[in-house]
Amino acid sequence: MPEVKFSVDQSRRFAEQEVRGHNRWHPDVPAAVTVRPGDEFRVECREWFDGTIYNDDSANDVRDCDLSMVHQLSGPIAVEGAEPGDLLLVDILDLGPVPQEQGPVAGQGWGYTGIFARDNGGGFLTDHFPDAYKAVWDFHGQTATSRHLPGVSFVGIAHPGLMGTAPSAELLSRWNGREGDLIATDPSAVPPLALPPEPHNALLGSLSGEEFDRVAAEAARTAPPRENGGNQDIKNLSRGSRVFYPVFVPGAKLSLGDLHFSQGDGEITFCGAIEMGGYIDLHVDVIKGGMEAYNVETPLFIPGRVEPRYSEFLAFAGLSVTESGEQRYLDSQLAYKRACLHAIDYLTTFGYTREQAYLFLGAAPIEGRLSGVVDIPNSCATVYVPVDVFDFDPRPSSQAPRKVDRGQCAVSSG
Amino acid sequence: MPEVKFSVDQSRRFAEQEVRGHNRWHPDVPAAVTVRPGDEFRVECREWFDGTIYNDDSANDVRDCDLSMVHQLSGPIAVEGAEPGDLLLVDILDLGPVPQEQGPVAGQGWGYTGIFARDNGGGFLTDHFPDAYKAVWDFHGQTATSRHLPGVSFVGIAHPGLMGTAPSAELLSRWNGREGDLIATDPSAVPPLALPPEPHNALLGSLSGEEFDRVAAEAARTAPPRENGGNQDIKNLSRGSRVFYPVFVPGAKLSLGDLHFSQGDGEITFCGAIEMGGYIDLHVDVIKGGMEAYNVETPLFIPGRVEPRYSEFLAFAGLSVTESGEQRYLDSQLAYKRACLHAIDYLTTFGYTREQAYLFLGAAPIEGRLSGVVDIPNSCATVYVPVDVFDFDPRPSSQAPRKVDRGQCAVSSG
Amino acid sequence: MPEVKFSVDQSRRFAEQEVRGHNRWHPDVPAAVTVRPGDEFRVECREWFDGTIYNDDSANDVRDCDLSMVHQLSGPIAVEGAEPGDLLLVDILDLGPVPQEQGPVAGQGWGYTGIFARDNGGGFLTDHFPDAYKAVWDFHGQTATSRHLPGVSFVGIAHPGLMGTAPSAELLSRWNGREGDLIATDPSAVPPLALPPEPHNALLGSLSGEEFDRVAAEAARTAPPRENGGNQDIKNLSRGSRVFYPVFVPGAKLSLGDLHFSQGDGEITFCGAIEMGGYIDLHVDVIKGGMEAYNVETPLFIPGRVEPRYSEFLAFAGLSVTESGEQRYLDSQLAYKRACLHAIDYLTTFGYTREQAYLFLGAAPIEGRLSGVVDIPNSCATVYVPVDVFDFDPRPSSQAPRKVDRGQCAVSSG
Amino acid sequence: MPEVKFSVDQSRRFAEQEVRGHNRWHPDVPAAVTVRPGDEFRVECREWFDGTIYNDDSANDVRDCDLSMVHQLSGPIAVEGAEPGDLLLVDILDLGPVPQEQGPVAGQGWGYTGIFARDNGGGFLTDHFPDAYKAVWDFHGQTATSRHLPGVSFVGIAHPGLMGTAPSAELLSRWNGREGDLIATDPSAVPPLALPPEPHNALLGSLSGEEFDRVAAEAARTAPPRENGGNQDIKNLSRGSRVFYPVFVPGAKLSLGDLHFSQGDGEITFCGAIEMGGYIDLHVDVIKGGMEAYNVETPLFIPGRVEPRYSEFLAFAGLSVTESGEQRYLDSQLAYKRACLHAIDYLTTFGYTREQAYLFLGAAPIEGRLSGVVDIPNSCATVYVPVDVFDFDPRPSSQAPRKVDRGQCAVSSG
Repeated sequence: MPEVKFSVDQSRRFAEQEVRGHNRWHPDVPAAVTVRPGDEFRVECREWFDGTIYNDDSANDVRDCDLSMVHQLSGPIAVEGAEPGDLLLVDILDLGPVPQEQGPVAGQGWGYTGIFARDNGGGFLTDHFPDAYKAVWDFHGQTATSRHLPGVSFVGIAHPGLMGTAPSAELLSRWNGREGDLIATDPSAVPPLALPPEPHNALLGSLSGEEFDRVAAEAARTAPPRENGGNQDIKNLSRGSRVFYPVFVPGAKLSLGDLHFSQGDGEITFCGAIEMGGYIDLHVDVIKGGMEAYNVETPLFIPGRVEPRYSEFLAFAGLSVTESGEQRYLDSQLAYKRACLHAIDYLTTFGYTREQAYLFLGAAPIEGRLSGVVDIPNSCATVYVPVDVFDFDPRPSSQAPRKVDRGQCAVSSG
Repeated sequence: MPEVKFSVDQSRRFAEQEVRGHNRWHPDVPAAVTVRPGDEFRVECREWFDGTIYNDDSANDVRDCDLSMVHQLSGPIAVEGAEPGDLLLVDILDLGPVPQEQGPVAGQGWGYTGIFARDNGGGFLTDHFPDAYKAVWDFHGQTATSRHLPGVSFVGIAHPGLMGTAPSAELLSRWNGREGDLIATDPSAVPPLALPPEPHNALLGSLSGEEFDRVAAEAARTAPPRENGGNQDIKNLSRGSRVFYPVFVPGAKLSLGDLHFSQGDGEITFCGAIEMGGYIDLHVDVIKGGMEAYNVETPLFIPGRVEPRYSEFLAFAGLSVTESGEQRYLDSQLAYKRACLHAIDYLTTFGYTREQAYLFLGAAPIEGRLSGVVDIPNSCATVYVPVDVFDFDPRPSSQAPRKVDRGQCAVSSG
Repeated sequence: MPEVKFSVDQSRRFAEQEVRGHNRWHPDVPAAVTVRPGDEFRVECREWFDGTIYNDDSANDVRDCDLSMVHQLSGPIAVEGAEPGDLLLVDILDLGPVPQEQGPVAGQGWGYTGIFARDNGGGFLTDHFPDAYKAVWDFHGQTATSRHLPGVSFVGIAHPGLMGTAPSAELLSRWNGREGDLIATDPSAVPPLALPPEPHNALLGSLSGEEFDRVAAEAARTAPPRENGGNQDIKNLSRGSRVFYPVFVPGAKLSLGDLHFSQGDGEITFCGAIEMGGYIDLHVDVIKGGMEAYNVETPLFIPGRVEPRYSEFLAFAGLSVTESGEQRYLDSQLAYKRACLHAIDYLTTFGYTREQAYLFLGAAPIEGRLSGVVDIPNSCATVYVPVDVFDFDPRPSSQAPRKVDRGQCAVSSG
Repeated sequence: MPEVKFSVDQSRRFAEQEVRGHNRWHPDVPAAVTVRPGDEFRVECREWFDGTIYNDDSANDVRDCDLSMVHQLSGPIAVEGAEPGDLLLVDILDLGPVPQEQGPVAGQGWGYTGIFARDNGGGFLTDHFPDAYKAVWDFHGQTATSRHLPGVSFVGIAHPGLMGTAPSAELLSRWNGREGDLIATDPSAVPPLALPPEPHNALLGSLSGEEFDRVAAEAARTAPPRENGGNQDIKNLSRGSRVFYPVFVPGAKLSLGDLHFSQGDGEITFCGAIEMGGYIDLHVDVIKGGMEAYNVETPLFIPGRVEPRYSEFLAFAGLSVTESGEQRYLDSQLAYKRACLHAIDYLTTFGYTREQAYLFLGAAPIEGRLSGVVDIPNSCATVYVPVDVFDFDPRPSSQAPRKVDRGQCAVSSG
C-alpha cells in the first residue's frame, strides 16, 4: 500500500477535514500536497455528496440535496517539475471503497445510485422521470447487488468519475465565457443549461478571506468535463488505466474524486454510477513538452486490463427521432436517449418498474456506442446490456417474457 | 453452404440482374423470393455503389458518384407466416467478400473507404475535409491492409451495413412526413438535412409502369436507419449475431446490402466502412406477437462471438465545444466529432496526413463510446483505437513520436 | 480469394487426384508446387479419412476404418529460398469447409467426431470407451449443432489439425529410431505405443516405382506431432494465426491437412475434432537463419484474434490418481484424463450418455490447462467448459440438475 | 469490508498467533471459527513460508528454508449445517496483499518467486536448475515488476494457491495409503516422490498433548492437491470465482492459504507464484446432497470475470521426447516441460539468463495448455506468453532479437 498523500476522515464532513480539498476549479486553489514524478501514493476520497445520502429506502435525500456542494475533490496535488505544455501521466494503480469502519458513510460496503428530480438537476431522461429515486447497492468484493433491484448482480468497473488538472487563468476565463454565453441563451431553463460560478458552498482548500472570495467568484463548477479532464465519468478509467492530462499551470495541480463502484456508459441517471467514498492509488510522471509533441489539447488514455469480462450482450438501437415523432438531424444524444428508453421498455416486460430499469442502466457496466453518425438524418446509437447480470434469461424467445413482481426502488415521499 | 436464395452476377450492374433488387423502401416492392421460418439461405450482394468505385489511386470516382443510386439491396425476402406485430429473428451465420473471380469489382480481394465531398453528401467531419478522398484496402483473409495507409493492418469486423424489414404504408408515411418537415427547415442546406423520395435511379424490384412510378414517388431513401433497421451501420452485426426486427407488413420483406469488410463505430467518413460486394448467410425465424410481448419498436440484437479481439486501446475524449470555442449543450454528436479530430491530430504526429487518419478511423475496428451524457453542459464522447493495428508503438512516451513520411491516400484531381 | 495452389476434387479419393498429396513424412516426397516468400495462396484439403465416414446414424464406419490411410496431406509446398536453419513464417489467413457442392463428403455443411474403438486406435479414454461412436455435426456459419447432441450449440474454432515442414533425412532417422525403441518396449500393446513406417496405403505424391518403395519403407507416419509441427492438433491455430516452423530441407516443403471445424484442447476422442474437408488460405515468408537467432527447435506461434469469445466457464479439476486409486507421480496426462472423466460424470446428471459427453468434450471449444505440475505427487489439470454452449444452465445450484432424455450418439452395431 | 473471521498478526510467526492455524490435513484439527451459510467474511493469511524469505538480493533464504513448515493455513472454518455429501459453495469475493504496515513481511507491497534447489524440494525443471534462485517483485496496484527481471511488467492474477475442505478419516487413510505406496517404489528419490506425514514443525490449531501427537503422526502434508481441493495452484481461482468443494466431514472445515499475487499455469518453479501474505474475502453456502446430485468427487469451479485481459500471445509447443532424445508415450507432463524449456531458450536470445526466464514463466500470467493428448506417441503441450508484458517486442522477425544485458536474479552463495 503506497503512502497516503491526501487523507480523509470519513466520519467528518469534507469542510471539516484537517487538510481540506475543494469543489471548484481555479488555478489559485493552493496545492494541498506535493509529489514527485515517479511517485506512487494513495489519495482518499469522500463520496461526491459528502455523506448526505443514506442507506435507506427513501429517496428524499436525493430529492433534497444541494448541488452547489459537489464535487468533493481531493487535491490539488502538485507534481514537481510539471510545466504548462507538459503531459501529466497518471496511472490508476488501484481504487476501492472506504476500507475501514468509520461510520455509516457510502463506500463502507455499500453505495447508491440516484435519479435526480427535474427541478434539482435532472438527468438524461428527466422528461420521463421528473421525480427523485434511489437504489442502494451492497458490495460483495467487486460484485454489486441491490435490494432495490432484485435479480441483478454484476461485477463493477470501479473508477474515479472526476480527475483533472487545474486550468490556467486563461483557460478558466474561456470556460466561464463560453458557458456564460450558453446560459444566456435561456437563463431560466430547468434544469439549467450550465452552472455558473457559485460562491455558496464553495470549498477552496486552504484559501480564506478576500482571496477566497475572489477565487470563489471566478472558479468553475465541477459538473462538466472540460479540457483538463474533470468530470469525464469515463467508466473505463478503471484499475490499471493510464491517463495523460494536459498541464496548464506549474505543478499541474491534479485533483480527483467522485469515485464510482460501477457505472454504465453515459452515467445516464446523472447520479447514475454507484457512488462511494474510498481510496485511489496513483503513480504519476511527466512527459515534458508532450502537448505539442503529440498535438494534445484534451486528455487521452489507455484503459486497464481488468475490466469485467462479459461476452454476451443484448443491445438496443435508438434513432434521432423524438418520442413525439419529430425528426432531428444527426443527434446522437437523442439517439442514445431513445436506445435507453427502448431498453427500459423492454426490461419492464420482465417485471421491473421503469425507475428500476433506469437506475439499472445507470449503474451496471452497460456500453453505449455511437454506431452510426452520418446517415442523414438519423444517428444510430446503441446500448449493450450484459445478459449474464440477470438471474433469468433476458433474451427474446418464442416464450413470452416471465413477468414477475420485482418490487420497486426507493422513492421520494413528495 | 446454404442454398442461394438471391443471387447476383457481379459482372453486371444491379439494374441488369436477372432478379432485380431495389434501392428504396416501400411496402409495395414485391418480394423477390420467399423463405420459411427455420430456413438457412445465402444472399448475394452488390457493393453499395454498384461497381463504380475502382481499385486505383484517384478519388475522382468518389467525387463524381451519384448518391441517388444507393443502396443496392438484395431482396425483399418474404418470410412465410410473418405478420405485423411479430419479431423477425435473423441470425447472421456468415458473410464475406465476393467469393469467385467475376471481374474487378470491389469485394474480390479488395474494398475501399471513401471521404465524400461536401457538395456530394459530405460526412461526419466534412467541415474539415470538404474534398473527396479514397483508400483502397487489400484483404488477406480477415485482415486488411492498404497501400494508402502504410503501417496499418487490422482484423476486420464484417457486417451488413444495411438490413431491415419493409415499412407499412403508415410507417412510410410517417417517415416521409417527419423527414420532409426537417428538410423544410433548411431546404438548401449543403449537404442536405435529409433525402426526400427520388424517382431518378430508383430500383424497385419487378415493378414497372404506373405502379413503378407511384411507388418511386413515395418510397423512402435508404440512407438513414429507421424503425425497420435499415442503414444502421452497426459494425457489431458481424458473424454469429442475432437480430430481432419488428414486422410491419405481411411476410416481413427483409432486404439487405451495403456489406462492409470492416468499419469503425460511426462509419465516420460516410463511405467510411471498407465497402465490398459479397455474400451473407442467414437463418430466419418468427416470434409471433413479439413486438407487444417485449415492448419492441425498433430492432434489438445479440452480437456474435467472433469480433476481433484487441485488448489494448489508445482512447481520445471529446467535448461538446466547437472548434471555434462555442459551448453546446450536451451534444454527443459534436463531442464524438471532437474526439475523432483529437485522434486525427494525434496520428499526424507519426506522419499520417489528416485525410489518412480520417479514413483510418472510418475503416478500422475503433470503438465510439457515449462516456458522459449528463454533465451539463458537456457531453464526453470517446474513441478507442486499438494499439496493435499499427506496426509501431503509437502510445505517448517521453520520446517524441517518430514522424515518418507515410505517403498519402487517393485524392481527387479537381 | 487467393490463387489455388493445391486443388482437390472432393468427389474423388485422394489417391485419384490429378496432383496427388501424401500421407507420410519423408524429405524425398517431391514438392507438388512451389511458391515464393510473400505469396498468398489457397490450399484445398480432403478430410482426414478421405470420405469414408458418412453423415448417418451408425458408427460402423468409424469402427471399420483403416488408420494406415491417414492423414491426407496437401503438399508438399516448396518455398523458394528457404534453407535449413531458417524459420518458415506461415500466416493462416482463412480456412473453412468445402465451399461448393461436390457430393456428400464431410465438410459440405457437416462434419463428424468419432470415438475410435480400442482395437482400432483407441483414444484418450479408451479404457472407459472401448467401442466406436460418432456424432455428426451440422454447420450454420461458424456454429455447430448435432442431432446426436441435442441442447448443444457452439461457435467452432476452425484450424488445420496438421501442418508442418518436411524432416531432413537425419531428423527422420531420429524419429524412426526413438519411436522404434518405444515400440520395442511393448510391441503387442493395444492400442500400439507408436506407429512404425507402413508402406501399405502409403501415398507419396508423384513418387513411383523403386523410389516409392524405398521412401515408403522409411517414411514416418503422420499421427504424432514432432519437431516439424505435424499433427499438433492445436485448436488455437485458427484464422489469423502466425506460425513459425523450423526448416530442415531446402524449400521447407510445407504440407497440411486434417482440417477441423472445431476441437477441444487435447482432441480427446482421438478423432475428436469436428473433421472436415475444406480450404485454407496461407501467406508464407522466410526468416533467414531464424532457428539459431531465436534458439528455435520446434514451432512457435501467435494465435489469431477471432477465437470464439466465451466468458463464463464451468471447470473441472483432475489429479494424477488412477480410478482404481493408485497414486502416480506428477502425471498431467492422467490428471487431464481424470478432469475429463469428472466432466463426463457431471454432464450425465443432465441426461447425456457418457459417450455423448465424451464426444462433446472432443469437439467443443473447451480448454485444457496444466494448472499445477509441481505439487508432489499430484498434478492438477483442469478442463474448462463454456457455460453458454448449452440451451440450459449447467451450473450447480440448490435445485437438482434437470435430467432429461437426450437420446444417444451414433453407435456401432457390433 | 466483511468481518474478519480469522485474523493474523503479520509481525508474528504463525505458531505464535493468538488463534493458531494449521499446516497439515486431518479431520480432527478443531475448527478455529464457525460461520453460517450465506455469510461473507474475511480471512487473513500468512505467506506460505511464514516470513522467512526476504526482500533482498540473495537466494540463500530459499536455499535453506525447511519445507516441513508449509503451508501456513488459516482455518479450519466450520460451516454450520454442512454434512458429508454436500457441496460447499465458496465465492472468492476479493483478495489482496497485506493491507497495513506491519513490518517487512512478504505481501506488504512486495512478494517473491523462488526456484528451490534440487536437494530442497526442486521444481518442474530441477534437472536443469538444480540451485536456488529468487526474484523479488514490487506491487503497483495489480501490476508487478521486479528489479530481478527488468523489462517485464504484468497484471497479476491473484488467487489462493491452497484452499480446501478437511478429509474424512477414511479419505485421509486412502491418501496416506496411496502416497506411501508411491514413496515405497523409490524411498531415496531426490526430490522425493511424495511427502509422508511429518510431525516435525506440524501446526494443528488448538490441538496439544497426546491428541496433537496422534494427529501429527497421521495428518497429510499440504503439498499436493487432492480430492478436497488443497494445493491446486489454479491461477484462475481469482476475484469473483465460485468454487464447489466436496464435503467430507461435518462442518466442512474449510482452510486456505498460500496466497499468490500472480502465477503462471503450473506454478513451474514450485515456489513459482508471486508469494505473499494478505487477506481474502469469502462468501459460503451449502448445496445439500450436491455430491451425488451432480456426481462430484473433486472440486469444480466457475472462474471470475476480472482476469487480466491480454489478447496477443507468443506460444511455444513441446513434445513428449526427453532432451536426450528418448521417446516417451503420451506424457503431457514432459511435453509441458519441453514447451517451457523452449520458451526459456527463446527468451535468452533477448538477454535474459535462463534462471530469469524460468522465474518469469512461474510468476507471469502465462497459460499452459494440453493441446494434443492422443497422437501417439507424442503429447503436444503449449505455453502461451503474453506479448505485452515486455517493454520490447518479443516476436520473431527478420531482424535478429535485440540481446541486451538484463542482469540476473537473486542467486544463492553456495
